[in-house]
Amino acid sequence: MSGSSFGKAFHVTTYGESHGPAVGVVIQGCPPGLAIDEHMIQEALDRRKPGNTPGSTSRREQDIPKIVSGVFENKTTGTPIHILVENEDADFRSYEDTAHLFRPGHGDYTYEKKYGIRDYRGGGRASARETVARVAAGAVARLVLQPFGIVIKSHTLQIGNVRAGSYDSGVLENSPLCCADRDACLLMEEQIKQARIQQDSLGGVVEICGEHVPPGLGEPVFDKLDADIAKAMMSIGAVKAVEIGAGVLAAGMRGSENNDEISASGFLTNHAGGILAGISNGEPIVARVSVKPIPSIGKELSTITRTGQPASISVKGRHDVCAIPRINPVCEAMMALVLADHLLRQRP
Amino acid sequence: MSGSSFGKAFHVTTYGESHGPAVGVVIQGCPPGLAIDEHMIQEALDRRKPGNTPGSTSRREQDIPKIVSGVFENKTTGTPIHILVENEDADFRSYEDTAHLFRPGHGDYTYEKKYGIRDYRGGGRASARETVARVAAGAVARLVLQPFGIVIKSHTLQIGNVRAGSYDSGVLENSPLCCADRDACLLMEEQIKQARIQQDSLGGVVEICGEHVPPGLGEPVFDKLDADIAKAMMSIGAVKAVEIGAGVLAAGMRGSENNDEISASGFLTNHAGGILAGISNGEPIVARVSVKPIPSIGKELSTITRTGQPASISVKGRHDVCAIPRINPVCEAMMALVLADHLLRQRP
Amino acid sequence: MSGSSFGKAFHVTTYGESHGPAVGVVIQGCPPGLAIDEHMIQEALDRRKPGNTPGSTSRREQDIPKIVSGVFENKTTGTPIHILVENEDADFRSYEDTAHLFRPGHGDYTYEKKYGIRDYRGGGRASARETVARVAAGAVARLVLQPFGIVIKSHTLQIGNVRAGSYDSGVLENSPLCCADRDACLLMEEQIKQARIQQDSLGGVVEICGEHVPPGLGEPVFDKLDADIAKAMMSIGAVKAVEIGAGVLAAGMRGSENNDEISASGFLTNHAGGILAGISNGEPIVARVSVKPIPSIGKELSTITRTGQPASISVKGRHDVCAIPRINPVCEAMMALVLADHLLRQRP
Amino acid sequence: MSGSSFGKAFHVTTYGESHGPAVGVVIQGCPPGLAIDEHMIQEALDRRKPGNTPGSTSRREQDIPKIVSGVFENKTTGTPIHILVENEDADFRSYEDTAHLFRPGHGDYTYEKKYGIRDYRGGGRASARETVARVAAGAVARLVLQPFGIVIKSHTLQIGNVRAGSYDSGVLENSPLCCADRDACLLMEEQIKQARIQQDSLGGVVEICGEHVPPGLGEPVFDKLDADIAKAMMSIGAVKAVEIGAGVLAAGMRGSENNDEISASGFLTNHAGGILAGISNGEPIVARVSVKPIPSIGKELSTITRTGQPASISVKGRHDVCAIPRINPVCEAMMALVLADHLLRQRP
Repeated sequence: MSGSSFGKAFHVTTYGESHGPAVGVVIQGCPPGLAIDEHMIQEALDRRKPGNTPGSTSRREQDIPKIVSGVFENKTTGTPIHILVENEDADFRSYEDTAHLFRPGHGDYTYEKKYGIRDYRGGGRASARETVARVAAGAVARLVLQPFGIVIKSHTLQIGNVRAGSYDSGVLENSPLCCADRDACLLMEEQIKQARIQQDSLGGVVEICGEHVPPGLGEPVFDKLDADIAKAMMSIGAVKAVEIGAGVLAAGMRGSENNDEISASGFLTNHAGGILAGISNGEPIVARVSVKPIPSIGKELSTITRTGQPASISVKGRHDVCAIPRINPVCEAMMALVLADHLLRQRP
Repeated sequence: MSGSSFGKAFHVTTYGESHGPAVGVVIQGCPPGLAIDEHMIQEALDRRKPGNTPGSTSRREQDIPKIVSGVFENKTTGTPIHILVENEDADFRSYEDTAHLFRPGHGDYTYEKKYGIRDYRGGGRASARETVARVAAGAVARLVLQPFGIVIKSHTLQIGNVRAGSYDSGVLENSPLCCADRDACLLMEEQIKQARIQQDSLGGVVEICGEHVPPGLGEPVFDKLDADIAKAMMSIGAVKAVEIGAGVLAAGMRGSENNDEISASGFLTNHAGGILAGISNGEPIVARVSVKPIPSIGKELSTITRTGQPASISVKGRHDVCAIPRINPVCEAMMALVLADHLLRQRP
Repeated sequence: MSGSSFGKAFHVTTYGESHGPAVGVVIQGCPPGLAIDEHMIQEALDRRKPGNTPGSTSRREQDIPKIVSGVFENKTTGTPIHILVENEDADFRSYEDTAHLFRPGHGDYTYEKKYGIRDYRGGGRASARETVARVAAGAVARLVLQPFGIVIKSHTLQIGNVRAGSYDSGVLENSPLCCADRDACLLMEEQIKQARIQQDSLGGVVEICGEHVPPGLGEPVFDKLDADIAKAMMSIGAVKAVEIGAGVLAAGMRGSENNDEISASGFLTNHAGGILAGISNGEPIVARVSVKPIPSIGKELSTITRTGQPASISVKGRHDVCAIPRINPVCEAMMALVLADHLLRQRP
Repeated sequence: MSGSSFGKAFHVTTYGESHGPAVGVVIQGCPPGLAIDEHMIQEALDRRKPGNTPGSTSRREQDIPKIVSGVFENKTTGTPIHILVENEDADFRSYEDTAHLFRPGHGDYTYEKKYGIRDYRGGGRASARETVARVAAGAVARLVLQPFGIVIKSHTLQIGNVRAGSYDSGVLENSPLCCADRDACLLMEEQIKQARIQQDSLGGVVEICGEHVPPGLGEPVFDKLDADIAKAMMSIGAVKAVEIGAGVLAAGMRGSENNDEISASGFLTNHAGGILAGISNGEPIVARVSVKPIPSIGKELSTITRTGQPASISVKGRHDVCAIPRINPVCEAMMALVLADHLLRQRP
C-alpha cells in the first residue's frame, strides 16, 4: 500500500534508496500558477547537505534537483510535480563487509523480517538519504504557504545533554548547529568533539515553529492538525518523541495553569502550541522532536548474522556523529507538508 | 475530506456529537468469520464509562453498543461493521449559559473559526464522548489481533506530579486509577481530592504496551508503525506528547547506550520500544502519552464572547477532575487499531 | 479496506444488509452551514421506494431517514453526517428455503467464495436495498450542488427492447416508468405485463444528465470526471455498461463528425457528453447505463448447492420484474456524489 | 489531490508531460522478491510504441525504461518502484502555431478553464504519451498476477465501422491491428487508408479479457471489480464507453436469457463477464471499450482562441489516424492494474 505517500490535499509520494540511481518525490495537489524553479529547491537541499555542519558525514553529494514534470515556463501547472535528485557519491563497497550482519539501532533486522530481502547498501530505503525527497517537497509546500504569510522556523534545543536556554535569532542565523543560544553552542560543539573521539554519537531535540498560521486548519477526530504533525515528525528516522506546546510538561500542570486564557487581542499564553481540539487557533504552532543518537558508531557492539549467529560489529563508513543540525530542515519540511495539506483541505 | 476515518486496511470511520442522538463507528476491512457479539464490546465500553473512577464526571451513560451491520449469526461477514451507541443522559441545558463564550482549553474558538457554526452542546464533535466510537472499534480490532497472540495493556504512569515508580500487575488489576504502583495510587488520589476542592483539574501520563507483536509490521518512510502510533495517540483529545521507547530521554543518550544490542535469543534492551526504522522488531511496542489537565474547571478564567467581547467563565456542568484512568482504554483502543491495520497490511 | 467508501473530498461510507437492523451512510466533507432536514432526504428516498411503479416488488418499507449526527439546528456543521434508515419489513423466512443454493445472476456464489460466509437473507450486503444509502447521500450532495445551479436529471431510455424516441418533460413528470416518450411508455408497460406473466424479468437503459456544471471539474489521468462517473454507475448492482456522450456510437464515427466544434457562444455539438480529457467543458454531462434484467425470476434455472451438488431453483420472494424506474434516482444520486466530490476538489 | 494515483493495495502514481523531460510511474505495494528487469518492461512498452502499426504517428521514441528504485539485484524489494522513461523526440515547434487555439476534441479548453495555465506542447499532461507510464506499471502488475496463472489478452473488435466477426488467435498474433479476424483486418486497413487520404481519423472497439482469475476478487458496493475496471478503462483518454460481459446488449435481454446458470463444472454461459455482484466468479473477465476517433485531424474545424475569438484550425503535427492497435496494450495494462490491486486486497 501507499506507505511512501503523505498528505491528502497536498499529496507527496517519495521513492529511492540510498545507493540506487536517485531519490525523488512526486507532488500532487499543488495549485497551478505558482512561480517555481530548481534554484529555490536547491537552496532548501543545501541546508540538509552533509559537510556543512560539525559532526556530519564525509559523504559528498551535490544534491542537484531536477524538475521532471508539472512545471511550464517556471510556473506550476496543477499536474504532478516530479523532482528527482541523482545519487552521485554512492560508494557502497564499505557496506559489503557488514551485509550479512544486522547493525544495531538500524532497520536491517526489521526490513529482513518484513520483506525477506533488503538492499543493504547504506540502509537502502531506510537511509536518511530518503529525507532529500522530503526537503524538496517541503520547498514546494512553502510556495503554497507563502501567499498566506506562513513562515516555518526551527532551531536546535538540545544536543547530547546540553540544552539551549536562550533564543537569539542573530546567533541562530550563523550557527552551524542551528542553535540560538551562543553559550550552548560552544558546549554542544565540545560534546560532539568528545563523542567523535570516543567513536560514539549524540542525539538531541529540535523545536519547530509555524508562524502566522490562520485559525481553522485541522480536522476533527483523527486528522487533527497535531495528530498529523505527530505522524509527520515521528516518520523521520530516529525521532522518538513528539511534543506539541507544553508537551510532556502539560502532564504535570493544573488546568488553571495550562488553559490559555483569551483576551480581545488574542490568547494570553500558548501552552496549547497553537492547536485546540486539533484545529489551529492563530497562535504559533510549536512542536518539539526528540531524536535518538545516530546508531552507526565505531564502538563494537553485539549483534547477529542473517542466519542468527552471534557476531560483533563496529560500523565503519561515512557517518554523522550528530545529525541534529541536518534534521532541522527535514523537520521544517515536514511541518510545511502538514500545513500546506491542511491549508488546501480548508475551503476558504 | 475523510478526517474522521483512520487506518488503511482496517479502516474505521466515526461520527457523532456529545449531545446528538448517538455516536458510532463503521469498520471496514475486518476479516470474515470472527466470533463477535455485543457483550464483548460492552465490556470494552464499560472500562471507559464515567463514574467508575475517582475524579470522573457524574454524567451517567449506559453506553449500550448495538451492532447494526456486518455480523451474521455472531460472526463477522467481511462487510462493514456498524456499531452504534445511543446518547441517553444528554442534558445540555447547562451549556446554554455559556453557548456564546469560548471555553479556554476547548475547541469552541477553533471550531467557530473553522466552520462558522458549532454545536455548542457539550463540545459537540470535540467532546471526549467521541472516544466511545474508538473504544468500540478497538474491541473489534482486538479480535483481529487475538489469533496472533497480540495483547495490549496500559497503565497510568503519572497523575498530576505523582509518578509511578514500580509495576505490580496485581495492584494494577484492582486500581481504579489504572496504576500499578500502590504508593503512588494513594498520592494520586490525594492530588485528585485536592484538585476537586480547588475546582481545578489534573493531567498525567499513560503508558501503552503491545506484547507479542510479530516482527515486520509497519511501512517504510511515512506509514512507519511509530508514526501511525504517534498520530493515533495524538488524535486523542488532550494528548500533548507521544513517546516511543526511550522517548524524550533518547535525546540525551549516547549511541552506545541507546542502541539495543542483539543476541541469538533476541534484543538485549528495548530503548527502541519495539520499532526499528518504522517496523516492529518483535520486542514489546512501548508508547507513552502525556495528557494535559481537563480544561473544564470551576475556577474563573478570562475569555471572550463569540463577538469578541471580554468575558469571564467558570465552567459548570458534569466534568472529570482527572481523565487519566478513562483515557487508558482509549489509548489501548488506538494501539489496537494501529496494530490491526498494519497486521492486515502485511501479507503473510 | 475501504470498498464501501466513495469520493475523496465529498466522502461517503455506507453500511447495512438487506435484512439487518438498518442501512445507512456517513458523509464526510460536506461544507458547513447548509440548510438540511429529514424531510428533503425523505423526498429523495420516496422516489426509489418500491410499490410506486409498475413492475416493482411488494416489499413495503417506510424508509424513514434519521439524521444521527453532523447537523445542528437544521444546518450542516461540517462534521460527519450520519443518516440511518431502519429496515422494517424484513421478512426473511422466504430466503431460508434457498439459503443452501446459489441463485444465478446474484452474488451468492461470489460472496461465498470471497468470504466463506454470507448473510443469505435477501442478498445481504449485495441487496439492492443498499442503494437507500446512496440515495440519502445523493440528497445531501445535491445541497452542495444547488448554490452552483447544478441540476441532475434522469429518464428511462429503454425497457426490454423498447427504446424511447422522443423527450417530453411533461410526459416524464407523470410517468411512473420515468420515461419521457408517451408511446414508448405504453409499450414498456405492456412488456412488463408480459414478463410478469412469464415469470421473467426485464432490463433497460437509463440516461443521466448533469446540467449547468461549470467547466473545470475533474482531474487529469486517473480521476477523470468520466472515469469517476463510470465507476459510480458501474458500482450500481446490475449495471453492465456505462457510456458518456456519444458512447458506443463514438467508435464508428469519424474524427470530423465526432469532434465538437467550438464557437464564441459555446460548443456546437455535445458528442463529448460535456467532458474533454476528463474535465467538464460547461456542456451538459451526459451518461447512459445499461442495466441487466433482474436475476430473481420465477422460472426454474439450473444451479448448485453450497456443497457443489446440482440443483434447480425458482426464486420466490418479493421481487421487481423491472427495476429501471427505481434505478433512475439511484443513478442521479451517484451523479450527484461524483459532481459534489469534484466540485469540492476544485479550488475556486 | 491524488488524481494521478490509482489502486489501493497495488498503488501507482504517474507523472509527466508529452514534451517535458520524461514520463514515469512510482509503484507502491508490489510484493518483494519478484524477478524483474528493464528488459521485460521494454517489451511491454514496445507494443504501444508508435510506428509499428498502420495509422500511427511518425513520432519516434525509443521509450527506454529505467528502473530508478525498489529493485535490488533484479528482485523487487517491497519498496516503491520508480520507472522513468525519457522523452527523446520532443519536437514542439509545431505546437507553437496553435498554442493560442483550443483544438476541438482535445483537453486544451478544459485544462485552460481548470488551471488557468496549460502546457500546450503536444497536449502536456493530457497527451496519450501519458500511457507509457500505465504500460510500464502494467508490466509490473503482471509479475504479481503471474504466479496465480492469470493471463490478460486483448484484441481489436472494431475499427471505424468494421466489426470483427471471428476470432483466430493465429491471425491475432500476426496482426499489426491486433485483430483476430483476417477478413476484417483487410477492411480495417482499407478504412484507415481512406481516412488518412481524407485527413480524417477513426475510432473503434477493444475487447480485454482476464483469464484464470480466481473467484472472490472485488469488494462489495463501491469498489466492485467491474466498477474499478470501468474507471480504469474510462480513464484512458478517448474511451467513451465501457461494457462488462453482455454489456449494452444486457439491457434488451430477459432474466431467463441473461442469467448464467450454474452446473457442477462451472457456469454454463458468461453474460456476466466473470463478475457477479462486483466479485469475480472464476469465469473470464470480459470488458469492452469504445474509443472515439482521434481528435487531431487535418480537416479544418471551427474553434476559438484563448481570448474567445472565432478561428479555424487544421491540426498538423505527427498524429495517428487510428489509435486502436496502440490502445490494446494500454487497456491490458489497466486490466492488470485492477486485477493486481484486487488480488492483493483479497487476503488468502
